[in-house]
Amino acid sequence: MTQDSKPTSGEDSLIARYFKPLATDPGAFNLDDDAAALKAAGEDIVVTTDAIVEGVHFLANDPPGTLARKALRVNLSDIAAKGAVPAGFVLTLALRGAEEGWLKPFADALGEDAAQYGCPLLGGDTVSTPGPLMISITAFGRVPDGRMVHRSGAKVGDRIFVTGTIGDAALGLDVLRGGPVAAALANDATARNWLASRYRVPEPRNALALAVREHASAAMDVSDGLAGDLAKLCAASGVSADIELPRIPHSQAAAALLGRGAVGVEALIAGGDDYEILCTVPRDRADAFALAAQGAGIALSAIGQVVAGRTGPRFLDGQGKELVLKRLSYSHF
Amino acid sequence: MTQDSKPTSGEDSLIARYFKPLATDPGAFNLDDDAAALKAAGEDIVVTTDAIVEGVHFLANDPPGTLARKALRVNLSDIAAKGAVPAGFVLTLALRGAEEGWLKPFADALGEDAAQYGCPLLGGDTVSTPGPLMISITAFGRVPDGRMVHRSGAKVGDRIFVTGTIGDAALGLDVLRGGPVAAALANDATARNWLASRYRVPEPRNALALAVREHASAAMDVSDGLAGDLAKLCAASGVSADIELPRIPHSQAAAALLGRGAVGVEALIAGGDDYEILCTVPRDRADAFALAAQGAGIALSAIGQVVAGRTGPRFLDGQGKELVLKRLSYSHF
Repeated sequence: MTQDSKPTSGEDSLIARYFKPLATDPGAFNLDDDAAALKAAGEDIVVTTDAIVEGVHFLANDPPGTLARKALRVNLSDIAAKGAVPAGFVLTLALRGAEEGWLKPFADALGEDAAQYGCPLLGGDTVSTPGPLMISITAFGRVPDGRMVHRSGAKVGDRIFVTGTIGDAALGLDVLRGGPVAAALANDATARNWLASRYRVPEPRNALALAVREHASAAMDVSDGLAGDLAKLCAASGVSADIELPRIPHSQAAAALLGRGAVGVEALIAGGDDYEILCTVPRDRADAFALAAQGAGIALSAIGQVVAGRTGPRFLDGQGKELVLKRLSYSHF
Repeated sequence: MTQDSKPTSGEDSLIARYFKPLATDPGAFNLDDDAAALKAAGEDIVVTTDAIVEGVHFLANDPPGTLARKALRVNLSDIAAKGAVPAGFVLTLALRGAEEGWLKPFADALGEDAAQYGCPLLGGDTVSTPGPLMISITAFGRVPDGRMVHRSGAKVGDRIFVTGTIGDAALGLDVLRGGPVAAALANDATARNWLASRYRVPEPRNALALAVREHASAAMDVSDGLAGDLAKLCAASGVSADIELPRIPHSQAAAALLGRGAVGVEALIAGGDDYEILCTVPRDRADAFALAAQGAGIALSAIGQVVAGRTGPRFLDGQGKELVLKRLSYSHF
């Protein structure tokens, strides 16, 4: 953790005080060096990087603890989807100033998650910015040589699975922005808070990583919306997919809103920020994969199958009629 | 290289078009996956991360090509100082918009440097920001198991070496800001441009990395000013240092300004952005190290020696009189 500044300044001591306890890996050298050293005994180091920006990926009034968790968990989600075991992460923080009232809850929550997921802080950089707060994390995982799970391995006939529930985070973002979902749930603070928490703190499915590595032909995490991410997986694999809309798993809160017509299914499957695992599994391994998920305590749903073709995936309703989506996912630019 | 957006958007294609040619490592999977896989056959992966922010680390009108080079080279400099061989990097770009006129020269220059230093792009994340442009790079190097060179190994009696020349970048920044150095060089465009280029495009000393690993007891790169960085190295090693000011290497341009009294030596040794290697070498290896530097074509100067003590390093003039520094280095907060 370098701070581009002299070692005696009060702010540096503050940063060091809060982040050193997170650097539990011996290769982090207690954050006292310019670099970390990651051991790799014949394994591949899986590397992923994801940044979150104030006003774009999170809201200015989001609590620092939830920002810390989200910044790390969006990366842990990639590590899980690639079939890898977390090995550590480096953190770049662009801050307007180093305030104890912000740094302490941020570092505390980050430390809790680092411990929970076995992913210690290895190093980082803290820089000042006149602009929005930005948290950039590069996370590392380990897989046996050549065993990272790719987007590109899906084969015709494979079953398509997704973990958890889809669409909660998109609804939660709408709640936090005071949009139509907030209005539809005006009398249900419990549902509003739960959906907001799904947006703020994803639940990466690292417990499923070994099963994904063992059984999946292709996998990725759902970060930009199920529809768009499935299209990416299909494009990378040179296949298409048939998805049965009624099989896409939704939370009670999301299902209730769907049932009342307060939201359409498109908002849920093109919404983004789910951080669930989407994967394809050969038919003869589907049962073993489902059992492994059960053993890991991860909810898993079979939502369709891989089919031949180069067109985008089809989303079919209960009558087999195709839903044509106006947009697949969230786009930045 | 994920873009948090649907694969069909024009901006994504733009980003993909410019960055895919840089992803020459097979473990980058042509940037088509969610993560990269770094091979490590019994080696340690050295990890370092450094971010640069518009208005803080570079100026809004700096050309995109020099930003690209600086962002990568400040990380390559850390890799070199740790005795490691570059293995690749991931890039996080926070942009206000994806403009071809900016992306093309940025990616072209980044690709040239990636090829020159053998450090291919492995992946990244492009996010939109309403604020200043930020470029965050996490770079990787390889060292044999346990052979990363630390800040903490300096021993009393070791010789202290520094590569290249010290202070040019600080002068160059002043030139670009139109400060007193610019005024002092009003009639010397050649010197102004040369100093500005030293600020904008550092020359990391990766050619010296193997010699550093072979001979140095401690090493770091000089990024925040020689004085402050030496103080950090001494603190990490539990030693102090005596530096002979006349032995600190300065460029012709810097020496001329010093000679005319246009700048003081403090501005040069506390200035920052040098990206030279500072290291300590046991006395009986000093000649071998100097020979290795000569073989690598890297200018190297012996500037002092490690002494016992816990106080900060002393900077002694030609008469052995100590220069007391008002500040050691640049501080962000």
